[in-house]
Amino acid sequence: MSAIRNVLFIMCDQLRRDFLSCYGGRVHTPNLERLARRGVRFDHAYVQSGVCGPSRMSYYTGRYVSSHGATWNNVPLSIAEHTLGDYLRAAGRTATLAGKTHVVPDTEAFARCGIEVESERGALLREGGFVSIDRYDGHLPPGIESAYADFLRAHGYASADPWSDYVIAAEVDGRVVSGWQMRHAHLPSRVREEHSETAYLTDRALDWIRAQGEAPWVLHLSYVKPHWPYLAPAPYHALYRGADLGPIVRSAQDGTAAEHPVMRAYRQHDEALAFAREEVARHVRATYMGLIAQADHHLGRVLDALDAQGRMDDTLVVFTSDHGEFSGDRGLGEKELFHDEIVRVPFIVCDPDPRADATRGSTDAGFVEAVDVVPTILAALGVPGATHRIEGTSLLPRLRGETAGGARGAVYAELDYGLRRARRVLQRGVAECRAFMVRTAEWKYVHWEGFRPQLFDLVADPGELCDLGADPRRSAERTRLAGQLFDWLATRKRRTTLSDAIADARTDTHRQRGIHIGIW
Amino acid sequence: MSAIRNVLFIMCDQLRRDFLSCYGGRVHTPNLERLARRGVRFDHAYVQSGVCGPSRMSYYTGRYVSSHGATWNNVPLSIAEHTLGDYLRAAGRTATLAGKTHVVPDTEAFARCGIEVESERGALLREGGFVSIDRYDGHLPPGIESAYADFLRAHGYASADPWSDYVIAAEVDGRVVSGWQMRHAHLPSRVREEHSETAYLTDRALDWIRAQGEAPWVLHLSYVKPHWPYLAPAPYHALYRGADLGPIVRSAQDGTAAEHPVMRAYRQHDEALAFAREEVARHVRATYMGLIAQADHHLGRVLDALDAQGRMDDTLVVFTSDHGEFSGDRGLGEKELFHDEIVRVPFIVCDPDPRADATRGSTDAGFVEAVDVVPTILAALGVPGATHRIEGTSLLPRLRGETAGGARGAVYAELDYGLRRARRVLQRGVAECRAFMVRTAEWKYVHWEGFRPQLFDLVADPGELCDLGADPRRSAERTRLAGQLFDWLATRKRRTTLSDAIADARTDTHRQRGIHIGIW
Repeated sequence: MSAIRNVLFIMCDQLRRDFLSCYGGRVHTPNLERLARRGVRFDHAYVQSGVCGPSRMSYYTGRYVSSHGATWNNVPLSIAEHTLGDYLRAAGRTATLAGKTHVVPDTEAFARCGIEVESERGALLREGGFVSIDRYDGHLPPGIESAYADFLRAHGYASADPWSDYVIAAEVDGRVVSGWQMRHAHLPSRVREEHSETAYLTDRALDWIRAQGEAPWVLHLSYVKPHWPYLAPAPYHALYRGADLGPIVRSAQDGTAAEHPVMRAYRQHDEALAFAREEVARHVRATYMGLIAQADHHLGRVLDALDAQGRMDDTLVVFTSDHGEFSGDRGLGEKELFHDEIVRVPFIVCDPDPRADATRGSTDAGFVEAVDVVPTILAALGVPGATHRIEGTSLLPRLRGETAGGARGAVYAELDYGLRRARRVLQRGVAECRAFMVRTAEWKYVHWEGFRPQLFDLVADPGELCDLGADPRRSAERTRLAGQLFDWLATRKRRTTLSDAIADARTDTHRQRGIHIGIW
Repeated sequence: MSAIRNVLFIMCDQLRRDFLSCYGGRVHTPNLERLARRGVRFDHAYVQSGVCGPSRMSYYTGRYVSSHGATWNNVPLSIAEHTLGDYLRAAGRTATLAGKTHVVPDTEAFARCGIEVESERGALLREGGFVSIDRYDGHLPPGIESAYADFLRAHGYASADPWSDYVIAAEVDGRVVSGWQMRHAHLPSRVREEHSETAYLTDRALDWIRAQGEAPWVLHLSYVKPHWPYLAPAPYHALYRGADLGPIVRSAQDGTAAEHPVMRAYRQHDEALAFAREEVARHVRATYMGLIAQADHHLGRVLDALDAQGRMDDTLVVFTSDHGEFSGDRGLGEKELFHDEIVRVPFIVCDPDPRADATRGSTDAGFVEAVDVVPTILAALGVPGATHRIEGTSLLPRLRGETAGGARGAVYAELDYGLRRARRVLQRGVAECRAFMVRTAEWKYVHWEGFRPQLFDLVADPGELCDLGADPRRSAERTRLAGQLFDWLATRKRRTTLSDAIADARTDTHRQRGIHIGIW
């Protein structure tokens, strides 16, 4: 029997892997290192999309973006999709949420199916199967679902919108200014650290875990930081100000005719226009790094609490992010594209089971994908998944040293930029903006609808500085990798309404059902 | 304004195109010719799968098999899929059904969404959006949905199961024998022609049309014949007995090591073992041809009735089939594979609008697909479709001579043989049995998961007798066609929960929603 009774699935938003000290970066993350010492640090973990919404839907469904269909932010999750919460509920368990999911309900389907949004069933479906302690998506003033606004007001932040007026606001000469303007990123937020979003969500989670006592639980603690707005509470606003922030990486191809047309179009987004200026990138990056340090601090509080309650002995802890960010590298801001800064994420798993003792503190260099989280959690709890829907693979055998080299041979990611300015720049239709990435040990290849592909030789060029997508000497690699993408696309799980077990049992049984085809 | 007020969408089951006199075949089909004279005969119409279930779900949703997910017979239609009936209902219209749909409801999703199967909403969802006059799928004794069993009993066929005892039964020396056994195919059915399935469904449709008076309507008249069991009522059982049935086509590759492995595996199906014997093929084919002649006769009754009521002046008539059948050609029975005998179907459309007068009686050699039916019907009725879901294209412009060469450049079909004996023969997993076909003007290429592709040069070899899938001289064509399949797969409509219009309107509007990314 597994020692695992609980699951804590922690996600940060827009947390870039290579900035973390536990991945060799400049932000001191002692608590991530502490977690990694007690589990396995995965070094090649990839998300299924470099955008919050589609990436998270892959984390929650165990399915690729083309399969779950929520191709960009605010695209509703189909009512036909099954989430972690659905699988758990079928086994009498509950997936609980504190923080962000970015799930948008398919209200048209609700109406068609006669589901009241405010009913218990409607609440589960609209929340992606999670039962919320406090849902809080973080990029707009807290709505009715979150108690954060009331919490702030109760702590003295008197305002109809304390998020805009305090959390993402600063002061200049007694004047209140907005954190939306990145020029203010060096200023401390008007919220005290212990009332900040990261502190608040940690408190909610710890209160809830404590309240569970010895009852088993599954919690998704989903932080909204270090995602923009780029404003940190003291002392984190100043932690990396003036420090060595590392190089701002540029490629000789940036902005030239040799650059991929979609990247060139992304350079016309507001964030790219701003981050292209190195002083902006450094100004904001120091804040971003401070926000990461703050997140690590609160991870430490979580680990302390779990330790104090003995929960580290029976809780599977998964820590990751929904994607990274450019932070000025390549002259870009934000995310979405397929460089490792975006789609390669921190990924640490601590499995308390004694069978995992041999791998504690080790690094697994094999590939991991976001779609592996659902099957890993289900396997840890002994809850059946659905092999005809879930496209990921449980990591438990790797955590327990049961497979040598059992990792997948490649990872895949997707983008639909139909709702982005780049589409208008490129004058494409809203349904003509899709891209598919395959990343093997040696290569990264991106198929762009209507444009040439991108190709990076990751052995010779691990920094992805030289796009070989138009290099005539690389046509054989491109053909081979396009074929690999085709095979992947052609094997996505589409028969979602009939289980593999039933399909297997029904195979060649028409005569048993009274249908006697082709009998002489 | 269009003259079209009504739509009659007629489908036969397993009706092979090249057997029909209106397509140059040996079965005299004067009423199909009559319909073709009044409309357009499409000569390159393809279904999206050579199997009833997936093909029909494509006809009813306007989406490819990989998109709707009902990859084989009895795979439930996802609750997220929208059908012709759904689109019509949103516009205050109703899609009515007489006959077969092969829709299987996703009862697991019903339970998850709290939909009672027996409620009005449940009835619509479980019937694929159709409101039934009489649903009758035809390959098993009529169930509770059909009144056919009661009809038969009321007409003197006394039996608990009059279908098995009369409709698909014959007599030998006073002994009742089953039509499931193909050796009895030469005998007349124990049901009188006017009480046969084809006559019954025609009567139900004509009664209903008459009852509508001048009220507009949309009817799917969906015959279960000439699909097996191969037993025809007199006189059709004898119509082609002893006649010239044409050649039984064989390829030099049949059953040899040069043949594709999946085709070789299909040869181990019961129907292939039987139809491989030429005497079986000819014995059954004569009956099959008689059943086609019977279907044409009843089509004539439908056309007579429409003429008599003036309905041909305001009714769009679409006639087609869900797929063909081998009928012993290539030593195979049944269907599923990608030869033109299976996936190329009869397709005739009669548009009463005066704008279509110029094309009446003409043949359109351009490609048509099953997915074009839903958008054609919606366009004819002025009902909005859903460009983010529907993957077909309205044929109205072609019917009205508004586009020159506006047809698609290729057609696509799919197969999932995971529930077939061939899978066991090939020792493959239930989810490892998918195939994708692209057919251009010159080539037919089939990608088979785990096996070499098939390739036919349709210019040099229109009979598809020589599979070039392993020919080293054709690797360039194979690479090019695989790339075309990839582009098709990569552009399937996955963002089904957000309309193109909303996506377009929302593009680059985050600042209007209070999200100020990347502002200095």
